[in-house]
Amino acid sequence: MTADYGRAFALWREAAGADWDRYVGHGFVRQLAAGTLPRESFLHYLRQDYVFLLHFARAWALVFAKSDRLAEMRAASGIADALLHEEMPLHVGICAREGIPEKMLQQTPESPANMAYTRYVLATGYSGDVLDLLAALAPCVLGYGEIGLRHSESGGPYAEWTATYGGGDYQRLCREVGQLIDAAVEARLGADWPSLPRAGSLAHHFAQATLLEVGFWQMGLDRT
Amino acid sequence: MTADYGRAFALWREAAGADWDRYVGHGFVRQLAAGTLPRESFLHYLRQDYVFLLHFARAWALVFAKSDRLAEMRAASGIADALLHEEMPLHVGICAREGIPEKMLQQTPESPANMAYTRYVLATGYSGDVLDLLAALAPCVLGYGEIGLRHSESGGPYAEWTATYGGGDYQRLCREVGQLIDAAVEARLGADWPSLPRAGSLAHHFAQATLLEVGFWQMGLDRT
Amino acid sequence: MTADYGRAFALWREAAGADWDRYVGHGFVRQLAAGTLPRESFLHYLRQDYVFLLHFARAWALVFAKSDRLAEMRAASGIADALLHEEMPLHVGICAREGIPEKMLQQTPESPANMAYTRYVLATGYSGDVLDLLAALAPCVLGYGEIGLRHSESGGPYAEWTATYGGGDYQRLCREVGQLIDAAVEARLGADWPSLPRAGSLAHHFAQATLLEVGFWQMGLDRT
Amino acid sequence: MTADYGRAFALWREAAGADWDRYVGHGFVRQLAAGTLPRESFLHYLRQDYVFLLHFARAWALVFAKSDRLAEMRAASGIADALLHEEMPLHVGICAREGIPEKMLQQTPESPANMAYTRYVLATGYSGDVLDLLAALAPCVLGYGEIGLRHSESGGPYAEWTATYGGGDYQRLCREVGQLIDAAVEARLGADWPSLPRAGSLAHHFAQATLLEVGFWQMGLDRT
Repeated sequence: MTADYGRAFALWREAAGADWDRYVGHGFVRQLAAGTLPRESFLHYLRQDYVFLLHFARAWALVFAKSDRLAEMRAASGIADALLHEEMPLHVGICAREGIPEKMLQQTPESPANMAYTRYVLATGYSGDVLDLLAALAPCVLGYGEIGLRHSESGGPYAEWTATYGGGDYQRLCREVGQLIDAAVEARLGADWPSLPRAGSLAHHFAQATLLEVGFWQMGLDRT
Repeated sequence: MTADYGRAFALWREAAGADWDRYVGHGFVRQLAAGTLPRESFLHYLRQDYVFLLHFARAWALVFAKSDRLAEMRAASGIADALLHEEMPLHVGICAREGIPEKMLQQTPESPANMAYTRYVLATGYSGDVLDLLAALAPCVLGYGEIGLRHSESGGPYAEWTATYGGGDYQRLCREVGQLIDAAVEARLGADWPSLPRAGSLAHHFAQATLLEVGFWQMGLDRT
Repeated sequence: MTADYGRAFALWREAAGADWDRYVGHGFVRQLAAGTLPRESFLHYLRQDYVFLLHFARAWALVFAKSDRLAEMRAASGIADALLHEEMPLHVGICAREGIPEKMLQQTPESPANMAYTRYVLATGYSGDVLDLLAALAPCVLGYGEIGLRHSESGGPYAEWTATYGGGDYQRLCREVGQLIDAAVEARLGADWPSLPRAGSLAHHFAQATLLEVGFWQMGLDRT
Repeated sequence: MTADYGRAFALWREAAGADWDRYVGHGFVRQLAAGTLPRESFLHYLRQDYVFLLHFARAWALVFAKSDRLAEMRAASGIADALLHEEMPLHVGICAREGIPEKMLQQTPESPANMAYTRYVLATGYSGDVLDLLAALAPCVLGYGEIGLRHSESGGPYAEWTATYGGGDYQRLCREVGQLIDAAVEARLGADWPSLPRAGSLAHHFAQATLLEVGFWQMGLDRT
């Protein structure tokens, strides 16, 4: 089963090479899928992920703010709004069940690996245009989709996590985001965009963000 | 009946002085309320307002992107999303009834007064922080509320317009935005914020945006 | 004598069409060159231009901040720094000779046409990438070059102004900025960039900024 | 000998607590001062520092772009320009003597710790206002000053490095930047600014950037 989220994703994933595999096949992910991940690592990840989600929602709001195409603005608004009003409450609920109250989540000291990733996305977005921002956002959205797809039938204590990202709703989101990205790139750079120098810098943002995702998993494993 | 949308609004409106009255009491508004506004002026305004709404939604998305407080992010996301998914379709509907199809709206050449206002808001927001942005956004949101309140019982061909902004839903939005602004300023600058030098620059953004609102009405009147 | 400042400029100028002529051949310019411009209009322009220069320098600093190419960063830094440390003192000196002390310059109430132009440039730069910013900056830098070239032998009370912009130093700057822009576009979009959809939005920014330059001259003439 | 770079620095340094000591007293620094730092660690640091300087210069350009006070714009422009036209050539020269040609510097793969720090500064600057940006920039500028001051009489292979940062020129720069920050904060928040809620978020940016500086030294030690 392959994660097929469009043309840009396929090109960028290939360009990211071994780093992509280090991300989607990271020890954290393998242990999560196998159900052997230490609970403390999962909880550490959940706490950091709460902080991450805030910046991630901001980054999608920035897509909305920077776009000059109505369809993109609408899609980005929908995603950013859903992150705040659906994903975060869901996340808060999971954490509560795991014994982490919302107040504690809000006081999570942000880990360096978390700052690295989220600020890379935001700084890239502010410095560049909406395509740079989308390229930096893609590894998170679509990488989780690929991970979910690979492990959707995992059992064990983290089955809910893998089922969520491997499930129909999230896979549909990934395909929509993949289409959004493809349409965004083509609308600005034309159908032959992979041959332009600009393609290199977009792939670079994707690859750097992928590297920082690797650091995020490692942070979960190391509880740093 | 006074527009009571909180403390910051009251201070900024007073500091804007005669320019505030030139805005909320502009000839365009008076003619609109009296039903004597030339239909061509109203249609010109509607077309420009479509372009304005796009940038206005972007500016609220930027509030979301730049804020570091969850309650603000949620409120801004709600407003930005409602602008795209409710206000714009409503606007498109009104224009359609007036004989302006959506395609024509999308091709509206942006008037200089429109650019002046929207880009002032966006540039202020990007250059400063979320408070600068809110101060620049306030005259539009809250000024329309004050205008609506003054003329909510107007009849004539534009009664729907005045009824909308004078109506309960929009007045509630104005009070909520007023509270959002008051809370945002206090959370960062403390309760005595009006005594800080920063208060001067916030009032300045409000006053400049007010001046540019005057230009927006004038554009409608002059159909420029 | 043609203003030859490179490929992008030639394309964008042509795309701006009659608006470009309305800008470089504006009544303000013609009267300035003929020496018949009312002194009050010239002084009004000088005062607004002081405020303009501050934002213009900021916009070049933003080119520096947003660029990922060392040569561009260096060029933009040189221009921004020269605007602050050479152009502005020069401007202050001219104004002083005309009886406008620096303190008065600093208190100039910014005209709407001035806000429109400068904030359009800044908002375009923050919303887009460095190419969008350069396209919005180009009409000012290069248009003054073309005007200077056309009127470099003008006599009369404003001969110093036309001599400055028509002179060797400023013309050299225009050619360098033209090359900077051409190199910046090619480095990102390749040699065939004029055939990409993106070319349309760059030309659009140039055209909008041109329109706002027309408004700036008109403001000088009308002393608004 | 104490690093006395003004009021804001003193407050923020104290608020950063033990993290500040972990930064200015990091093993990398101690070994550098003692002359025992492995040459490979120093070279790794130099290469990453080249990439760092590019983003650091951008961040100062952003101070320029975002400031609305002429004195700040001038100071920031001077610093950003000196970084590009003096500091970077100096750095390139040192690296060349160490056997790292400029071409290799330009191809340095950016380390995660480097991305974390520089993007935190930039994202904080774009998201907030000029004060947020200055608070995030301060640990680098002023921490190097404090380190230089402590170790200015070190001998050994890295004596030139410590002599540079402990020397009169750099110490003067630190005092000027300290004054710039104090003036910037007071001009916006008044003399009692440390009592405002905003003071907490400024101290937070300083503390986070300090933590990321710790990571930068560690990266040099670990050559990661």
